[in-house]
Amino acid sequence: MTMRQNRLHAAMEEKQQIQEFRFGEKTNRRRTRTMSVAASDQEEEIEEGKGKEQVVDLDHGDPTVYEQFWQKMGDRSTIVISGWQSMSYLSDVGNICWFLEPEFTKQVRRLHQSVGNAVTEDRHIVVGTGSTQLFQAALYALSPPDAFEPISVVSAIPYYSSYPSITDYLKSGLYKWAGDAYTLKGDEPYIELVTSPNNPDGSIRQAVVNRDGGTVIHDLAYYWPQYTPITCLADHDLMLFTISKCTGHAGIRIGWALVKDKEVARKMTKFIELNTIGVSKDSQLRAAKILQVVSHSCEQLGYPEDSESFFKYASRLMADRWDRLRDAVSQSGLFSLPEFMPESCNYAGEMTTPHPAFAWLKCEGGIEDCENFLRGYNILTRTGKHFGAQGNYVRVSMLDREETFDMFIERLSNIRL
Amino acid sequence: MTMRQNRLHAAMEEKQQIQEFRFGEKTNRRRTRTMSVAASDQEEEIEEGKGKEQVVDLDHGDPTVYEQFWQKMGDRSTIVISGWQSMSYLSDVGNICWFLEPEFTKQVRRLHQSVGNAVTEDRHIVVGTGSTQLFQAALYALSPPDAFEPISVVSAIPYYSSYPSITDYLKSGLYKWAGDAYTLKGDEPYIELVTSPNNPDGSIRQAVVNRDGGTVIHDLAYYWPQYTPITCLADHDLMLFTISKCTGHAGIRIGWALVKDKEVARKMTKFIELNTIGVSKDSQLRAAKILQVVSHSCEQLGYPEDSESFFKYASRLMADRWDRLRDAVSQSGLFSLPEFMPESCNYAGEMTTPHPAFAWLKCEGGIEDCENFLRGYNILTRTGKHFGAQGNYVRVSMLDREETFDMFIERLSNIRL
Repeated sequence: MTMRQNRLHAAMEEKQQIQEFRFGEKTNRRRTRTMSVAASDQEEEIEEGKGKEQVVDLDHGDPTVYEQFWQKMGDRSTIVISGWQSMSYLSDVGNICWFLEPEFTKQVRRLHQSVGNAVTEDRHIVVGTGSTQLFQAALYALSPPDAFEPISVVSAIPYYSSYPSITDYLKSGLYKWAGDAYTLKGDEPYIELVTSPNNPDGSIRQAVVNRDGGTVIHDLAYYWPQYTPITCLADHDLMLFTISKCTGHAGIRIGWALVKDKEVARKMTKFIELNTIGVSKDSQLRAAKILQVVSHSCEQLGYPEDSESFFKYASRLMADRWDRLRDAVSQSGLFSLPEFMPESCNYAGEMTTPHPAFAWLKCEGGIEDCENFLRGYNILTRTGKHFGAQGNYVRVSMLDREETFDMFIERLSNIRL
Repeated sequence: MTMRQNRLHAAMEEKQQIQEFRFGEKTNRRRTRTMSVAASDQEEEIEEGKGKEQVVDLDHGDPTVYEQFWQKMGDRSTIVISGWQSMSYLSDVGNICWFLEPEFTKQVRRLHQSVGNAVTEDRHIVVGTGSTQLFQAALYALSPPDAFEPISVVSAIPYYSSYPSITDYLKSGLYKWAGDAYTLKGDEPYIELVTSPNNPDGSIRQAVVNRDGGTVIHDLAYYWPQYTPITCLADHDLMLFTISKCTGHAGIRIGWALVKDKEVARKMTKFIELNTIGVSKDSQLRAAKILQVVSHSCEQLGYPEDSESFFKYASRLMADRWDRLRDAVSQSGLFSLPEFMPESCNYAGEMTTPHPAFAWLKCEGGIEDCENFLRGYNILTRTGKHFGAQGNYVRVSMLDREETFDMFIERLSNIRL
């Protein structure tokens, strides 16, 4: 096989294996015609959409839902960076994470304190190019460097659909994807991924293996008041967060890890050093500004003038979307959704109900391939199979722009067998 | 061995193996006292430095040399980003590289056209979190996905000191570091890295293996007029560039690849998708602005009002530093430097002499460990051993701030046996 053939073969193979992101060119062409777009492009979209039903793409979780909040914030969340600023690789030379901007650290600690969702005292903060990079940094840090076999990486079904491909794409000798945590055999060391609230199904989770020789990575991307009641101050050894799902700024590519063990923080930093020689300072500074605005709005919670509190706005919005989704499901009669019980939220100071970032939708009535079934109605979702579950489930993003969500609800309500 | 012991062992092992970046905490503490810092911190530095000779750290290539130029540019290179901008993961949904900002693409093409250093017609542009990420994306794209053994990655001695660790840190089953390109045996497929001008020695390079089954990654980070005469329009299959060394904005973490083959561009994009789900939009927008200012200054070259042309400024500055370095070496009598011949530069329209970003300094007079010898004078450099060469060589950064370079020159001039 020539190199050219090899490359073609490789491209085809990864297309088959790694379908989760679906940001590839083919999908993109479809999205160019169909995705909801910013105001200036809407005319073109409508023109292109004439005479055929638009595709509603809720496959991935692009969190554009909060755009209007940030538009209302106006200049308060604007950042200005001069050409001569942030030129050096270095940010905080006395810190283990030498590329961490001190202002970003300050705002991360402040926000967690305001919300009460995670302990930051005696924790090392490691910044990453999104929590995806930090997840890989954590695998690198927690894997024995000299083991004969790569360490097993597991997560309970249904797990985040990208975990298998992110773990295995480089065929690392340090770690390997080993599937469902419930089926892990043997007494070898392992790494367990616990996403809570869970992607795709919104459930609150804990580690399931719980034996010697294991370490746990807690992905708390969705542990914010708009998605779930804040019932406790998370206090795990290694916790991952991302601004993408918290405030909706996915394009910033900023995540952070709260790490108890100094050596783990050091090794995660080393990974990011080798992977990308640090993390964009511009993004860190912008993220700091965004988090500052959120904290500021939090701290006014309960005051009459709190109309712009981010989490209150976001919670109302998510609650409204879930109400409409449950109505649509009820009208159609063909689907079901997980049920969530209200719990006391320490942040809101009252009972609140979970409103997850994704809906884990089940096709009832003997439909075995829910993704395919919905595609027939020009609704794109992600099959349960990618999450280690059954094909009668799909994951639906609840975080797209309003007009996309409206189309989805209208279409779903009218689906009959 | 417990997990805790494993982690400690791992941390120690990587500390021994991967010393190239040296941004770790221990080094940082030293740098906190000693590195040249921005104006506002200088007072503290002087106070802390009292009574002992400051350490001159020229180990890594932090390109702060151009800060003053950008200060002079004032608001022209300032960027303003509103809170509601750039929230989506997506940038250009019709492009293979779906996270590439169109304005960044435009400015990359414009700059290459202004400088005449690389072909951009019929090339796919892939943006990366620095060229380090793009290097790994290229390895991923060019490695056969189903080979029995990882493909060999080679580069001619002396090679960039980070290539071995970046290639091997994840113990990938796709590719492995195989050292000096001149010693590559057998007829298996391989990937050759060609850095030109070369890091560490500034030489102009071409591939050395040149046989079937090989692909080449051209790292052209230093192929800009301030470092070397632009003698031809580079036209290779896969070329890497970074804003860090071009304009000095290392903290932005932006690089770009010019890629001929569509499938290679697609697979590099897939790597970045899996590695970091795209590249900071804020950084891309800021990089676009910086490159625009550079192009603007380029296009005025030859006019009487061209006092702010970036490459002219940078070339004068590098020429001055090299003159001073050669004087110091001559005064000391203990060292030698590579010699470079002037060549006709298509950009400058005249004969120019190379002034590389690093000096590849050789200790003469029987000193076998040049790094250690200079450390005795509180000058930190990087031993030739990390570049696959001998310990009587060191690499010295020519891109640090003026006051650091001044100290270095003064100290070097006075070294006698």
